[in-house]
Amino acid sequence: MAYLVQKYGGSSVATPSKIRGVAKRVQKSLCTCDGIVVVVSAMGDTTDELISLAHRLNDDPPSREMDMLLSTGETITAPLLAMSLAAIGVDAVSLTGLQAGIRTSASHRKARIVDIIPERILEELARGRIVVVAGFQGANEQLDITTLGRGGSDTTAVALATALRAEHCEIYTDVRGVFSADPRIVPEAVPIPEISYAEMLEFAAVGAKVMHPRAVEIGEAYDMPIWVRSSFDDSGGTIICRHPKLEDRQKVRGIAHETDVAKITMLRVPDRPGIAAAIFGPLAEHHINVDVILQNVGHDGTTDLSFTISASDLRAAEKLVGDIAHSIGADGYEATSDIAKVSVVGTGMLNTPGIAATMFRTLADAGINITLISTSEIRITCIIDRERVRDAVQALHRAYELDQL
Amino acid sequence: MAYLVQKYGGSSVATPSKIRGVAKRVQKSLCTCDGIVVVVSAMGDTTDELISLAHRLNDDPPSREMDMLLSTGETITAPLLAMSLAAIGVDAVSLTGLQAGIRTSASHRKARIVDIIPERILEELARGRIVVVAGFQGANEQLDITTLGRGGSDTTAVALATALRAEHCEIYTDVRGVFSADPRIVPEAVPIPEISYAEMLEFAAVGAKVMHPRAVEIGEAYDMPIWVRSSFDDSGGTIICRHPKLEDRQKVRGIAHETDVAKITMLRVPDRPGIAAAIFGPLAEHHINVDVILQNVGHDGTTDLSFTISASDLRAAEKLVGDIAHSIGADGYEATSDIAKVSVVGTGMLNTPGIAATMFRTLADAGINITLISTSEIRITCIIDRERVRDAVQALHRAYELDQL
Repeated sequence: MAYLVQKYGGSSVATPSKIRGVAKRVQKSLCTCDGIVVVVSAMGDTTDELISLAHRLNDDPPSREMDMLLSTGETITAPLLAMSLAAIGVDAVSLTGLQAGIRTSASHRKARIVDIIPERILEELARGRIVVVAGFQGANEQLDITTLGRGGSDTTAVALATALRAEHCEIYTDVRGVFSADPRIVPEAVPIPEISYAEMLEFAAVGAKVMHPRAVEIGEAYDMPIWVRSSFDDSGGTIICRHPKLEDRQKVRGIAHETDVAKITMLRVPDRPGIAAAIFGPLAEHHINVDVILQNVGHDGTTDLSFTISASDLRAAEKLVGDIAHSIGADGYEATSDIAKVSVVGTGMLNTPGIAATMFRTLADAGINITLISTSEIRITCIIDRERVRDAVQALHRAYELDQL
Repeated sequence: MAYLVQKYGGSSVATPSKIRGVAKRVQKSLCTCDGIVVVVSAMGDTTDELISLAHRLNDDPPSREMDMLLSTGETITAPLLAMSLAAIGVDAVSLTGLQAGIRTSASHRKARIVDIIPERILEELARGRIVVVAGFQGANEQLDITTLGRGGSDTTAVALATALRAEHCEIYTDVRGVFSADPRIVPEAVPIPEISYAEMLEFAAVGAKVMHPRAVEIGEAYDMPIWVRSSFDDSGGTIICRHPKLEDRQKVRGIAHETDVAKITMLRVPDRPGIAAAIFGPLAEHHINVDVILQNVGHDGTTDLSFTISASDLRAAEKLVGDIAHSIGADGYEATSDIAKVSVVGTGMLNTPGIAATMFRTLADAGINITLISTSEIRITCIIDRERVRDAVQALHRAYELDQL
């Protein structure tokens, strides 16, 4: 049977009239397949409202209870969509994550899906019903409610598509796909028609917010094509799959940027073994992710060591690095958050002469200074001044002719 | 083990600060028993808001989906109370009806509890935890969510108390117990210290809104004492039990009244067998409950037949009775909703000479005309003009010296 899984995000179901729109879209999709499973998020700001309600009662609410509370957001949307489908004559049934057979690890607020027992869903599909599943949630062995953390509903959708051997998984959102650059900065930016899982993962890691990496990873592991589309129009969107069309390979796919970046430089660090562990160990213990790292070896046996973190982690990091500098015999540290990250993403670009050169020349021509550079097989990232990020993204988008897609 | 079950209604958990108050009360009760199960309702108007949301999507939403939706109201309160308990150092865990083992019939929106599998609750109690159960909900054989209809959370509480062989069940509400009369009409009215299940059932049937009869029936069937108390103060409240103190028996317990009453009189009905069925059959089919019935046999082989219904059912009833009158050869009908019901309730009152006489004399002395009278073993009800109901209740409360309790 050719099943289809569709996921609608919070902005797509934010009001009763938007839910009616989703119902119509689901109805229209019915003729293209043998059955549809719809995964829904919580309406609009519901999750934030529930979190703030919890914090009025407990500064540090137990995770298990938070999961029980937060899961209600999606559990409200699912029957509302089922009712809306019924109102236009489409037989539908809503299921919680538990009822849908989504079994997760025990770790609350960031549970991982360990198994999907799809019997109930298959039974309802066989009866000709649309199955509406509350996203973001599952149940552990004890049948306690768990939630899947950030990107949870996308994860639910791709995992269900995999378990049901769906043809593909459609992710409906409030934008028209994965863009070649942020359209708020580059008005000519267009949705990328096809992108590989690996490119999408890199893209998400350096600032593209449309898809959370977790769902993409599951798609990659099980070869499940993910189609990112707008719930408000019928444009083509972006297909994330293993093999984008051959002629599209080895070129720049898009420009990502991220302004939630801060840089810390440890000054005149003695250059001896164990230093990196002494610096990055304590940060990791405090769940501060370190991104780009650069070491400038000096001539006097010391080195300046710079690294970037999320600007939102800067305050927590500063509490640690003073002590660290002291303990390793460095001369102290400097910190700044006036920086940004701009990245060029595309498969195999390091093997394509000229892509990196174009990036550096374009930034130089625009008078933009590069503080740090980091590269992977499919990405080049430069750290620049934050106030130049808009100029940089626009110039790079033009330089790689991404508006010609 | 001596367990205690407490239930807090919607007004008792309407805001975060009220939930904190409930948490403190639960903590205080801990020293009186070996473990507490708390049943909670949805916060304030949550259920009404969910119903109105549903009706914006579907005029006649499928009952199964309504249950899924409405159950979230209680599922939100339960973890909030558990968090609030955690915040004051009391270990607590929230459970949905399904997780709490509440198994119901399949009939959505008015499911009946068929079994309680208390293993999970007992396990958590054994670990020293307060167990907070979302009221009003359960799950059917297929593990679909069901709701228990009106009075659902009270029913959950008394049923759980029975399954756990609790010492008693405490129902916390926004009033100080079951009053000898409505305190908005009789300021001197006081909570009745003890009342039997049978009296409470009669009392509820004729207008006392504090406890829904379903929960009282379960209490009676399993001999589970129910203590109705205010969540906002420490006054004694009302204990509903099998044997109120002996010296309290055979006296008037309280005065109830009900203004949601309408009367229909079928005029000059031919007095022959089958007439009652012809009149009341169609009303029952349309779920219109008939209350007091009075037949005045005339001398010409016809009879005027009067009966009362809820005023809110009057419009639906009028659609039927014209046709019924025609089909049975009556002369038509008259309808009025300018009436009210006033009742005196107390065990064994029919065997106590003078109670009925006092009622009739008191109303007569106040110049209040009695239209219909109906009686049971423990209740006398008079139908009177609606505009005299306040005078009637006040006069009767004085006549039976209920302010002397």
